[in-house]
Amino acid sequence: MREVAIIGVKNTIFGEQWDRSFRDLVVEAGVGAVKDAGITGEKIDSMFVGNMSGGQFVEQEHIGALIADYSGLAKNLHIPSTRVEAACASGGLALRQGIYSVASGMDDIVIAAGVEKMTDVPSAKASSALAAAADREWEGIMGATFPGLYAMIARMHMHKYGTTSEQLASAAVKNHQNGQFNPIAQYKNKITIESVLNSIMVADPLHIFDCSPITDGASAVILAPADIAHEYTDTPIYVKGTGQASDTLALHDRRDITTLDASVVAGKRAYEMARMGPEDIDLVEVHDCFTIAEICAIEDLGFAKKGEGGKVTFDGETAIGGRIPVNTSGGLKACGHPVGATGVKQAIEIVEQLRGEAGKRQVDGAEIGMTHNVGGSGATAVVHIFSRNR
Amino acid sequence: MREVAIIGVKNTIFGEQWDRSFRDLVVEAGVGAVKDAGITGEKIDSMFVGNMSGGQFVEQEHIGALIADYSGLAKNLHIPSTRVEAACASGGLALRQGIYSVASGMDDIVIAAGVEKMTDVPSAKASSALAAAADREWEGIMGATFPGLYAMIARMHMHKYGTTSEQLASAAVKNHQNGQFNPIAQYKNKITIESVLNSIMVADPLHIFDCSPITDGASAVILAPADIAHEYTDTPIYVKGTGQASDTLALHDRRDITTLDASVVAGKRAYEMARMGPEDIDLVEVHDCFTIAEICAIEDLGFAKKGEGGKVTFDGETAIGGRIPVNTSGGLKACGHPVGATGVKQAIEIVEQLRGEAGKRQVDGAEIGMTHNVGGSGATAVVHIFSRNR
Repeated sequence: MREVAIIGVKNTIFGEQWDRSFRDLVVEAGVGAVKDAGITGEKIDSMFVGNMSGGQFVEQEHIGALIADYSGLAKNLHIPSTRVEAACASGGLALRQGIYSVASGMDDIVIAAGVEKMTDVPSAKASSALAAAADREWEGIMGATFPGLYAMIARMHMHKYGTTSEQLASAAVKNHQNGQFNPIAQYKNKITIESVLNSIMVADPLHIFDCSPITDGASAVILAPADIAHEYTDTPIYVKGTGQASDTLALHDRRDITTLDASVVAGKRAYEMARMGPEDIDLVEVHDCFTIAEICAIEDLGFAKKGEGGKVTFDGETAIGGRIPVNTSGGLKACGHPVGATGVKQAIEIVEQLRGEAGKRQVDGAEIGMTHNVGGSGATAVVHIFSRNR
Repeated sequence: MREVAIIGVKNTIFGEQWDRSFRDLVVEAGVGAVKDAGITGEKIDSMFVGNMSGGQFVEQEHIGALIADYSGLAKNLHIPSTRVEAACASGGLALRQGIYSVASGMDDIVIAAGVEKMTDVPSAKASSALAAAADREWEGIMGATFPGLYAMIARMHMHKYGTTSEQLASAAVKNHQNGQFNPIAQYKNKITIESVLNSIMVADPLHIFDCSPITDGASAVILAPADIAHEYTDTPIYVKGTGQASDTLALHDRRDITTLDASVVAGKRAYEMARMGPEDIDLVEVHDCFTIAEICAIEDLGFAKKGEGGKVTFDGETAIGGRIPVNTSGGLKACGHPVGATGVKQAIEIVEQLRGEAGKRQVDGAEIGMTHNVGGSGATAVVHIFSRNR
């Protein structure tokens, strides 16, 4: 396969954007990424767009063509554009399809984007739409939504490993600490362990500050064959590994609900492809849809021993300047979580860090970074490893 | 890129299947294709699934993982599974993603499948869900649904080229003639031009017998590198070309509503890749969501001069035994149109024809076949060319 590099990136602001439409958001991200790569639309061979539920959130399917159209790439250029969906892992999988297409040699310059417009519906409708990422016939139909499912994971993690509410909260506190330095972040306020513990209980033991928010946003990257990436930018970032894995849709079918086997296997596949291990990674963006998800993720990817994710986080090992900085962007918790966009935004955070352009959240000397994007309660996981050196 | 072949195929019955669920359908197709290829689940490297609107039809997103799970490929094997959506072209694009993945060298054995369960909602809800394939903010919001949009195309085609209602009807009559010999077809009854013209008017000039039905069904194919395809089957069918193109989502933005530019461009891209032209094709499955769509398709793909599609069809040139057999499966009209599955079913029809296994609908000596799958009113088109010879 051909090696692949990222040559351009762009996020919109993440947040409640009632004055902007679904299509406004994704066009801003796409056009911004094209500009960042210094190319024009005619250079693009294909587009892949991650979106979980345009149908339920904005009554619009056929998202790929919509985006090509509103980006001015459909009418005369007729650029192929394909939507990819795997719930909250849609963005990560759009990136993976883009990698496939460049690796195959069928395409050279490719856009991989993600978008979600979630605030145009009442929050009960948003919860219901998101619950469609769980097993509707075994979970959703019983009234289970994601805070409840992740609360069960958290309760079991506490039971098996002695993880505490304070340790969970420390993940949110760190992510807000990082988010204040990210211009696109939905929340730029600092919080404390006390404010997390005193916030409303959503699904015991998860408080509302343990939960990522409902967000509007879009993100896009431009991919190119590694061989010609330097023609477009002085700082191409190389894709060294990609791994994807599935697991049962319903949580109750898993062998162990405190381990997301899909994360473990996707990580393993990405590490093998990159010929690397956790010790080679300088920073990682993990899928912290809830604080417990970050704790599980750093264990499942090999950055903490099983059961010690909470302790490691509480002790500051995952802060900027710590042993392995986690979610320098602010993560889903503080940066926001437009579900289709998140996987692409994670890649952009790593690109900005490896380019040395992350400002006050810069990880010194970062050379290799990882992203970890999860769908639902772990039925899909996709992991990518990036390097500033080929 | 590596060349790709199809080594196994399976369709479910197409029709109203109130006794079977979404997941039942896709598992039957997937398992059937695996059996047809003579492999076991452990051999599979990746799955790609076309589905337009699980969210709106069965309140279920995250379709890729669902299918891996219910096929027994998630819990222990953790096989990557990705949903692809482009409205009624979702199946054709799932096939295309599968081709990318094998061509890239990242995967060897891949399932490309498509599924839609459309009859679990009232028909008004189905129409509304399907309308999400059009431009919601410019078409859907005005009350436009697909029969109305295609009726405008038909009216303009009649105005510009003198196409008649009888000519349109002749496409439906031919497709029912073919469908009676297809074991999976939703409708196996013969119809006549008179019965089409006497059927209820849906959107003038389109009668209900000009329209494809609402259907439940699933289809799956197994892909492998061409180099090793003979290890699995004596009759691999080779992918010679794939082309995809986008156009404006809204019909009113097109330069000419009687030509689907996306079909023209996708066809051109597939022909170029295969180094072939229309004269090389022995039979073609085109996207006849309405009779007028078949007329436009055979013009746009080069099988009839612009404006002569109706005449050519009425004259029998597209019948089995004619100059260029079109929709030997019965097409969307008679075989049925489970929107996410259709693009894959088209490929299966070509595979069965090129294998010489199409029974009473066999096209004698068929060596090269084409599929043409459209999303919405032509904002996405995807064309594939297959050959029994490498």
